[in-house]
Amino acid sequence: MFQRVLIANRGEIAVRIMRACRELGVETVSVYSQADADALHVQLASQAVCIGPAKASDSYLNVDALLTVAKETGCDAVHPGYGFLSENADFSDRCTQMGLAFIGPSGDVIRMMGNKSAARELMQKHNVPVVPGSDGAVETAQQAQEIADKIGYPVLVKASAGGGGRGMRRVDRPEDLEAKFQEARAEALACFGDGQLYLEKLILNPKHIEFQILADRHGNVIHLGERDCSIQRKNQKLVEESPSKILTPELREAMGQAAVTAARAAGYENAGTIEFVVDQEGHFYFIEMNTRIQVEHPVTEMVTGIDLVREQLRIAAGLPLSVKQEDVVLRGHAMECRINAEDPTQNFRPAPGTTRFVHFPGGPGVRVDSMLYNGYEVSPYYDSLVAKVIVHAPTRLEAIRRMRRCLEEMIIEGYPTTADFCHLILHHPDFVKGQYDTGFLAAHQDELLGWDKED
Amino acid sequence: MFQRVLIANRGEIAVRIMRACRELGVETVSVYSQADADALHVQLASQAVCIGPAKASDSYLNVDALLTVAKETGCDAVHPGYGFLSENADFSDRCTQMGLAFIGPSGDVIRMMGNKSAARELMQKHNVPVVPGSDGAVETAQQAQEIADKIGYPVLVKASAGGGGRGMRRVDRPEDLEAKFQEARAEALACFGDGQLYLEKLILNPKHIEFQILADRHGNVIHLGERDCSIQRKNQKLVEESPSKILTPELREAMGQAAVTAARAAGYENAGTIEFVVDQEGHFYFIEMNTRIQVEHPVTEMVTGIDLVREQLRIAAGLPLSVKQEDVVLRGHAMECRINAEDPTQNFRPAPGTTRFVHFPGGPGVRVDSMLYNGYEVSPYYDSLVAKVIVHAPTRLEAIRRMRRCLEEMIIEGYPTTADFCHLILHHPDFVKGQYDTGFLAAHQDELLGWDKED
Repeated sequence: MFQRVLIANRGEIAVRIMRACRELGVETVSVYSQADADALHVQLASQAVCIGPAKASDSYLNVDALLTVAKETGCDAVHPGYGFLSENADFSDRCTQMGLAFIGPSGDVIRMMGNKSAARELMQKHNVPVVPGSDGAVETAQQAQEIADKIGYPVLVKASAGGGGRGMRRVDRPEDLEAKFQEARAEALACFGDGQLYLEKLILNPKHIEFQILADRHGNVIHLGERDCSIQRKNQKLVEESPSKILTPELREAMGQAAVTAARAAGYENAGTIEFVVDQEGHFYFIEMNTRIQVEHPVTEMVTGIDLVREQLRIAAGLPLSVKQEDVVLRGHAMECRINAEDPTQNFRPAPGTTRFVHFPGGPGVRVDSMLYNGYEVSPYYDSLVAKVIVHAPTRLEAIRRMRRCLEEMIIEGYPTTADFCHLILHHPDFVKGQYDTGFLAAHQDELLGWDKED
Repeated sequence: MFQRVLIANRGEIAVRIMRACRELGVETVSVYSQADADALHVQLASQAVCIGPAKASDSYLNVDALLTVAKETGCDAVHPGYGFLSENADFSDRCTQMGLAFIGPSGDVIRMMGNKSAARELMQKHNVPVVPGSDGAVETAQQAQEIADKIGYPVLVKASAGGGGRGMRRVDRPEDLEAKFQEARAEALACFGDGQLYLEKLILNPKHIEFQILADRHGNVIHLGERDCSIQRKNQKLVEESPSKILTPELREAMGQAAVTAARAAGYENAGTIEFVVDQEGHFYFIEMNTRIQVEHPVTEMVTGIDLVREQLRIAAGLPLSVKQEDVVLRGHAMECRINAEDPTQNFRPAPGTTRFVHFPGGPGVRVDSMLYNGYEVSPYYDSLVAKVIVHAPTRLEAIRRMRRCLEEMIIEGYPTTADFCHLILHHPDFVKGQYDTGFLAAHQDELLGWDKED
């Protein structure tokens, strides 16, 4: 096992990684921006080094600074967390070149899975179902037109290098294709310095179901079941659960197999997530792979009893997976609510501020992952996530009731959060019945917010 | 299920009961003393009623006040928690007489198990092993002498109505017996108004192993495995774990069977605990039954996944147990540390004060049950327990490492606590090896406290 790990991140995920390290007897080095001098990840680390001003590009994204700190503090590994440099292929390579174990896949694998059209091609080659669309990249609007005519409208024009909806356009009619194609290309060039595009059929209001996989250096690849992450606002997940209500054992088996195949095809090592959409008829399609730990990983930890960050460290240290596929059993039901410092009534506008008072829920089947403490200043410079409340219970309905109870117990004063909005979601009859897809929040946001108004 | 439950308790257990009620959709009525007006159990309840001055005998032990509140607020059940009136047979009877479901066993059962020599006789009758000693009560010192000669010294002279070490004397030599017998009788009379005594062989430094049982109204009695509670100071448990390192599957099976037999023999209903001592040779002996929920119940909840307070409510409402014996599986390892507002360097003297800052641990496999919040005033009037930190992990060693990590993360400012002392216990090689008995703390207390001194 490693002796000392640099945590190239901040917030709750830095704290989460530190917990796994500490339990393994591994020392941790935290880095922090000037804005984060009082942060919890600074206080809990074995040591902490300031690496620059608040702006992420000057600190958490500063590869040279991070590598210098790693070397000077005698680290033998780097954990990138999620966001920031976690899916930066060059950062993975640079770590490896400097003799630091990167706790994640190699640069080559990140690069390949980061190119969405290349990943698509790879999946097709290995018979993992993909959304109908172009075979790889599309060069011209003319080509795109031909493919769209074949697969049927609406279609999505997407940047190969894309993410977060940038360089992406929805096209409903043939006559709009040419213009949207050029728009997407211009945006892709501007955002990613790469104008390559590809085409996909738009699956209307699908379920977003992702599979957690683990792969070690010894050829073991397993999946840990699914997470249903269909409750999203602005393409950002808000409530996640495992297992998904819509998966039959047969569909889970088929998708799990496809996820393992996908990871094997990529020559993947470490923890990763295979994202699928599932349409109204129960057909599933690969959309992309996340080559890092996810925000919502705790729901999988709750139903499987497996510590994913611990596994990440073990894998990167060359150890075999500590479980076999046949030992992975999903027990009970887990659910996570993301508590963001945002104002749901202002279309989820980030609302940073000083934590005047915080009180977290406790008791049976409750887990809280957070960097908050009384007096903590939520910075406007970074992601608005301030806490994750995760519950586990024998059944889905008991998990929902437990989560409601938790959100009722929780107090965060000083800024608005998504907690009350999550509480409203947990009372919507369609959510309770498990009848929701990625269109749920867009369709019900105003209705939910209206519940809280007296007139 | 009930509509509204009166919680005749305070502190973390009142909060714990409230959580179970809320998840079942049951309203709660809290009672509080004048000293507890700002307590968490007051703030979280559906409604709360002040029942008197700080002194427990004027408030939490005031049966008439409690029953009046229960009736006036329209409660249909009463949960007594632990301590206070939880093992008061008359209180159970009074509730029943007023048409309130008492969430615990009947007065008759509490009365029988509360008389230690009667309980002993009952167990002998049903072939549950008891510590060698007298058959029932002993009338004279002369009788005691004869029995002691037969079973061998040292022996314990104990009050039938006893508890907490009062009315109890250790006798090492025949010539001391007469005097100690009279002392014990006088103390028993003074403390309990009942001078009845019985005799037991003193098992030197045994393991304290207790079995959790659940029994419903429909004849179902199951056990949920054991808790090893041998880490005690002044007969008060400090660290508890499940499973116990010393139980073989065969011994667990035999003790579990004995626990179920004991509960059946008592005609028991609701959750209860059968306490055993286990000697150096692995022989086990019934010592007593606790006819209530225990402080350390969460370790059983963590390894079994069963919510014990929920089961208590279901049982009292006449519902069957929600699990069968064959479905009870102990998964992984759980451990609890009791965090008391006490000063370990002053022989665990209670040290109440204002909670200037509190920060609890989080992350995977961690549960905190507490009534603390920033600013909470720990009252000198009641028990010093302020938090329970419970961890769950695949193995015992991982649970120990997780618990160490939790105690390192936790911050409580304003008064000394047992947290650091627990942290020291978790580093003692004998504890890590699982080689400890009820004599551990007495033997190692000074050594452990010495670790923290520089000279």
